[in-house]
Amino acid sequence: MALPYFKYERVEDVQQKLLSSAREGMRKVEMLDVRNATEYVLAEDVHSKRDIPQNDIAHFDGYAIKSEDTKLASFKNPLRFKIVKEIKLTERGSSYEISSGEVIYVPTGCELPQNADAIVPVESVEREGDYIILTRPIVRGFHVIHKGSDIRKNELVLRRGTIILGQHVKVLLDSGIFEVPVYKRPKVVVMPIGSELTNDPNERHKKLETHSYLISHLIEKNGGIAIQRAPIPDDPGLISEEVEEALENYDVIVTIGGASIGKMDFTWNEAKRIRRPRLEVRGIRVHPGRVTSVVLFEKPIIMLPGLIQSTLSGAIFILLPLIRFLAGLSPSPLYPKFMGKVKSVINIPEYKPFKRVRFVRRIGSVNNEEERFIDLLRYESFHSSVLLKADGIAIIPENIDEIPPSKTLMVYGVHGLF
Amino acid sequence: MALPYFKYERVEDVQQKLLSSAREGMRKVEMLDVRNATEYVLAEDVHSKRDIPQNDIAHFDGYAIKSEDTKLASFKNPLRFKIVKEIKLTERGSSYEISSGEVIYVPTGCELPQNADAIVPVESVEREGDYIILTRPIVRGFHVIHKGSDIRKNELVLRRGTIILGQHVKVLLDSGIFEVPVYKRPKVVVMPIGSELTNDPNERHKKLETHSYLISHLIEKNGGIAIQRAPIPDDPGLISEEVEEALENYDVIVTIGGASIGKMDFTWNEAKRIRRPRLEVRGIRVHPGRVTSVVLFEKPIIMLPGLIQSTLSGAIFILLPLIRFLAGLSPSPLYPKFMGKVKSVINIPEYKPFKRVRFVRRIGSVNNEEERFIDLLRYESFHSSVLLKADGIAIIPENIDEIPPSKTLMVYGVHGLF
Repeated sequence: MALPYFKYERVEDVQQKLLSSAREGMRKVEMLDVRNATEYVLAEDVHSKRDIPQNDIAHFDGYAIKSEDTKLASFKNPLRFKIVKEIKLTERGSSYEISSGEVIYVPTGCELPQNADAIVPVESVEREGDYIILTRPIVRGFHVIHKGSDIRKNELVLRRGTIILGQHVKVLLDSGIFEVPVYKRPKVVVMPIGSELTNDPNERHKKLETHSYLISHLIEKNGGIAIQRAPIPDDPGLISEEVEEALENYDVIVTIGGASIGKMDFTWNEAKRIRRPRLEVRGIRVHPGRVTSVVLFEKPIIMLPGLIQSTLSGAIFILLPLIRFLAGLSPSPLYPKFMGKVKSVINIPEYKPFKRVRFVRRIGSVNNEEERFIDLLRYESFHSSVLLKADGIAIIPENIDEIPPSKTLMVYGVHGLF
Repeated sequence: MALPYFKYERVEDVQQKLLSSAREGMRKVEMLDVRNATEYVLAEDVHSKRDIPQNDIAHFDGYAIKSEDTKLASFKNPLRFKIVKEIKLTERGSSYEISSGEVIYVPTGCELPQNADAIVPVESVEREGDYIILTRPIVRGFHVIHKGSDIRKNELVLRRGTIILGQHVKVLLDSGIFEVPVYKRPKVVVMPIGSELTNDPNERHKKLETHSYLISHLIEKNGGIAIQRAPIPDDPGLISEEVEEALENYDVIVTIGGASIGKMDFTWNEAKRIRRPRLEVRGIRVHPGRVTSVVLFEKPIIMLPGLIQSTLSGAIFILLPLIRFLAGLSPSPLYPKFMGKVKSVINIPEYKPFKRVRFVRRIGSVNNEEERFIDLLRYESFHSSVLLKADGIAIIPENIDEIPPSKTLMVYGVHGLF
């Protein structure tokens, strides 16, 4: 069954080669308005430009006072303080000042007037006309939120690698930061190849191309910007023309189909003809998906096989790790989902030196691992119905003959898929 | 500490009342082009309009043959079949037919010609000029992918409630379905209230309003479409005008700040003055966030408190469940994240009949529950720095005095937050 011309490299080796090439210049940083930066990944540590709060402010509606003046206040010796001003929240507290024997009314969040260092909450004090009557001393800093007590100026606010979410936008803006350096989301063009394909549902004599919707969605969910192209016919001239044009305009080129060695598979040869590649990978040791190939100039061309489960497998192991890395995310799109026992023996009849990917479903208990089983969905690489039923993928390592029943395997989710 | 005028209803009661009102007409369904429907939730079961594949097709490049003709083939009795045609993938296989003693070359995926019922793979047979030589019989259906073997016409493809991802778009299109009924994403206007606020970083004498970025991001990540408004001053006339206008144009109105009973808190009274509400909720039994209030006409006005941790708490317990429900998602934005032991005693000095939300951080082992602890981040409801440090929230139930050290608690994530 081994096809000629394929070299079938180890996935780990291919990933490593691709990512080190990416490190040498493919990964770009740009400055973005913080308000447009959600879901981007921060490319540098960010430090606050401000104290938060920016000044000592009142924690409650109340009277700003000089604590020193209140030392002798007691029930036996009530002290009177004159309310010389009521400040509105729209005013700056520091435009006003108090002298001994005076207080100023301030609302919650208001900057303290000059000379004031404590707040007497409005509901805890008796008022008589323009005066308040204090029957106990007030400690310095009472009900004051101190300058910088939430975040200090120059404090590290967010680390490089943070995925920017709503709370980060909020705190960055609060910190006086309006632009941030982020990893550029790579522009990834998705080019299905095949004369039998169309993207027009009304062209009834052709097959509607739909793989690109799945691959584009995965690209978007893993940090890239996907651009879907109309299918390109199996014509060597057209393919090389379109690929060369794409190399001008996009960061990553992905082809779907036409990557094998059949009579109508031109992509590999046409891509290699453009110029001498910095890196080439002809096949990977993963099944399905073994036909997945890469040609790298300054930019990578990732060739995915055309049968849907193979397309996905190539995307999971080669395409998405590269895109995630370019976008600043951890490379693997996989995350551990649950463990379960294999329901019945899994035989590995062929391609033994290959990693094996199988779409699986959970049977039995969600909570009890002892009663949770993994059901391998029927495998034919052209089947798409399994994608609707799967809870995740199981990865069967290289060079084993079988997996016995009841052996425990980890089931992985794929970001954007399940 | 109990403020007058608040009724503080149980969160579960408020959620239940709101969702049953939503069920009575607020939740809308629309038809969408499948290609624009990712992340929407399917409002009805969907059945395939086609068999997939639509015809019997070849699984390999090979020769389409009538299996009956091959019965007597053996090494001793090799049979010759004439190759009468080579079909291209762009042609319809059923336009051609074979007679006994004939084969037609078909590429992988090609529809079988009439009378053919099996495929002899190209690499498994000897060819002599225009003939192939068969030395063994071929069984009916050999290397044929049968019509409907992936998905049958009228088969249930996707259930109501499915969140539409890339693989669903693909399979829907393959099934001949180009439009789907989905729950409309509610348009949610976010209106910060406060004369001290601005959305213009250059207005230095005012405070930059930033809560709305966090709340809008959460709305978007939980099924809604967020529309951020410039801050509205504390002016009863302006507030009622803006709220009434918003009721015309949006599905849900959210205000931030101005919801309490201070001198400058006008939102509750102004909202109630518009007309007689179908439902009103004045405060909820959650701390922080207790000031969160609701007035419902045909559309709901959700009033969130202004201090960030309170704003978030109101969003998590009241706003997001409503939005998720309207968008067709399971109402709770919470998901269980990990269990951990409380590091030191948690005292509940006040608001004992209230549920308590605390932002927490994991300390110790990721994998070993016995060595994993929960660290409660310092609580002041105006602090936003805790949002950067938290791994999730702990929810402390009503009516307890304290949580002893080493007691195990569940930490929850919030969709779109952490």
